[in-house]
Amino acid sequence: MEFSSKLLENAVNEMSQLPGVGKRTALRLVLHLLRQPESQTLNLADSLNAMRSKIKFCKSCHNISDTDLCEICANPHRVANTICVVEDIRDVMAIENTSSFRGLYHVLGGKISPMDGIGPNELNIKSLVDKVKEGHVKELIFALGSTMEGDTTNFYIYKQIQECNVITSTISRGISVGNELEYTDEITLGRSIINRIPFETSLKS
Amino acid sequence: MEFSSKLLENAVNEMSQLPGVGKRTALRLVLHLLRQPESQTLNLADSLNAMRSKIKFCKSCHNISDTDLCEICANPHRVANTICVVEDIRDVMAIENTSSFRGLYHVLGGKISPMDGIGPNELNIKSLVDKVKEGHVKELIFALGSTMEGDTTNFYIYKQIQECNVITSTISRGISVGNELEYTDEITLGRSIINRIPFETSLKS
Repeated sequence: MEFSSKLLENAVNEMSQLPGVGKRTALRLVLHLLRQPESQTLNLADSLNAMRSKIKFCKSCHNISDTDLCEICANPHRVANTICVVEDIRDVMAIENTSSFRGLYHVLGGKISPMDGIGPNELNIKSLVDKVKEGHVKELIFALGSTMEGDTTNFYIYKQIQECNVITSTISRGISVGNELEYTDEITLGRSIINRIPFETSLKS
Repeated sequence: MEFSSKLLENAVNEMSQLPGVGKRTALRLVLHLLRQPESQTLNLADSLNAMRSKIKFCKSCHNISDTDLCEICANPHRVANTICVVEDIRDVMAIENTSSFRGLYHVLGGKISPMDGIGPNELNIKSLVDKVKEGHVKELIFALGSTMEGDTTNFYIYKQIQECNVITSTISRGISVGNELEYTDEITLGRSIINRIPFETSLKS
């Protein structure tokens, strides 16, 4: 792509570093900004800079936060001895949206994935294990995505805490609410038969 | 969407102002930036700011440029008396890529579209008409998109310069090279029959 302006080219190149944004999309976005008032570009640039330089991570659960301890960890009404292990902040937001969980979270920051060069030391695993070993945790809920990397990460953490007096569980897998059986993939359907629950229990949820 | 951080929320809100970027995509992009080195966010913000505040438009053709006169207008080897009228800079880039045009451009900055509140005065039409009236232009090629707004804009400009001694043409419409007839819409196919060209001419292009 040949640009008539170096400034435009730089902006497009930087914009196209974002995931899922190619050169053409980047050009479209940048030309859009040129047509808008200058303040919009200024606000975008400022908010990105402010976020990147000032944002903090909760020292307890590693969730993104503006304070040292995030709102969830600092809330005395949450059940502090139940910890839900998630991959990133989007999972926290998704679970919070359900209003079904009153415990705390622990954000790993990713999943163990040797292919991408992510080992256990790149993730917030040690602080989780330490937390469990201190003995205040009653239950650990694994809520990672149901992929090979997710299962590996679950198992890696489980191996380190299995000697501790803590209940471990994973969120249930099965067919989605409202889904037809015939369109469900066979692995999910097979698992949902193996992991069936008493009918009386299903009535309560 | 509930955010655990005001800084994050601001960044997501600003990002989601971009066309085609919703809140979810904005969050994904912003979280990606958080995982990258701080310099990437800094470079992105700086390049956007620099572009928005320093970019110039060519005083002759209104193309985006770093100098007062863009590279194309300043090039003495281009045919200065043939002007191709386009909507925006992306069209200039597309036509330049074909290497089929050696004249100059005139970037209107949009199409006449009363529905969007864009009248002739919002576009760079007057400078084009003035250029033609000065008498140095031999041919004007209309290369706007083939929509109602494009046709309206072409006709509006044509009415203002029809008294002048200038040849006007539009780029040809027809079925794309490599396309099957049966998949072409009927308006395009109908026009391509009406505007058929001598077979000998087609051999040369």
